[in-house]
Amino acid sequence: MRIKLEKLEVQTRGDKELVDVTPEVERVVRESGVQNGVVNVLTMHTSSGIVVTEGLPCLEMDVLNHLETLAPDDGDYYHNRYLDIDGRLGFNAGSHLKSILGGISAFFPIEDGQIVKGGRQRIYFAEYDGPLCRTYCVQVIGE
Amino acid sequence: MRIKLEKLEVQTRGDKELVDVTPEVERVVRESGVQNGVVNVLTMHTSSGIVVTEGLPCLEMDVLNHLETLAPDDGDYYHNRYLDIDGRLGFNAGSHLKSILGGISAFFPIEDGQIVKGGRQRIYFAEYDGPLCRTYCVQVIGE
Amino acid sequence: MRIKLEKLEVQTRGDKELVDVTPEVERVVRESGVQNGVVNVLTMHTSSGIVVTEGLPCLEMDVLNHLETLAPDDGDYYHNRYLDIDGRLGFNAGSHLKSILGGISAFFPIEDGQIVKGGRQRIYFAEYDGPLCRTYCVQVIGE
Repeated sequence: MRIKLEKLEVQTRGDKELVDVTPEVERVVRESGVQNGVVNVLTMHTSSGIVVTEGLPCLEMDVLNHLETLAPDDGDYYHNRYLDIDGRLGFNAGSHLKSILGGISAFFPIEDGQIVKGGRQRIYFAEYDGPLCRTYCVQVIGE
Repeated sequence: MRIKLEKLEVQTRGDKELVDVTPEVERVVRESGVQNGVVNVLTMHTSSGIVVTEGLPCLEMDVLNHLETLAPDDGDYYHNRYLDIDGRLGFNAGSHLKSILGGISAFFPIEDGQIVKGGRQRIYFAEYDGPLCRTYCVQVIGE
Repeated sequence: MRIKLEKLEVQTRGDKELVDVTPEVERVVRESGVQNGVVNVLTMHTSSGIVVTEGLPCLEMDVLNHLETLAPDDGDYYHNRYLDIDGRLGFNAGSHLKSILGGISAFFPIEDGQIVKGGRQRIYFAEYDGPLCRTYCVQVIGE
């Protein structure tokens, strides 16, 4: 049984942004030497996510815009109050809600050293509260 | 460590449809011989999903209708433009959004050769852009 | 390869409630003795979920309120009919929809015997149809 875990950083540039991390996930799988198993991808932050969709800029915009429609930043939230933990007003409830709706993780099988995924499936780190330096995990388990 | 991966096809009949694939998932687990471990289920398409809910036709309709309410096919999307990759207009942004909201995967533990799941939990392949011949993966990992 | 599965009960007190089960998940990981691997968390019910977000009471309220906005209990659903399986009217379509939108599972890597998660990530059992005695699974796989 082989297990490899990498904690990767991504510097986001926008307030909302989908960053295609598929090449990084593929690299970790390749370097792990695992031939058959699974790869797990997970964000470490509650105002970001992991999203799988087709790799088209127009669709990336639709995903971010639609999550904003479903969970707007300027909604009326309890979180919009002074928070001791941060020493400031909470302001990003909409980001947390987007994270829950869009999901925080993904997994794919590995077969013969390759990630098994659909030809149009791309793996995105989803920033909902940037720009920030973010951390996500890629873990390979198999043999 | 045993790993078994099956790529299964499902021919959907409707534009939107929930297909109960629980028996297929159970069959793969049984044939794998794995006594303890996990079973992963994952769609290979960005306009479909994997949904777990109670196995009632009325509820299946509610799930599809509600996702249509939250991410309507006829919304105003950037994806509604000419796409070189397809040689035609993008038209299914709503399907991609439903896929993200409803989720694309599920997993369940395996104990004593049986899937551990609630008595009312059924595993569905969710078609949001049919009818099409679709592929999903069932992977068993354990011993 | 070590595999440990625990089925845990939680008695919810409200109709809608987020119960922080992080300490229970950490306990199962610790007692498993697994040093490197993955921990899976999964609800056994179709009207509840597993949600990961920041551990703040104001945000917990926002999550539950927002899911109610997106999938209201008093919507017009097909499920609102007499159900032979229950011997009564279906009334909780909104709860099932919240379960799908919020998700029913989560996983985290384990490294050096510790769960790898962000400092603000808490793991919640999400009750959407309580109060009830509920079951969820925590499974550790690794070595």
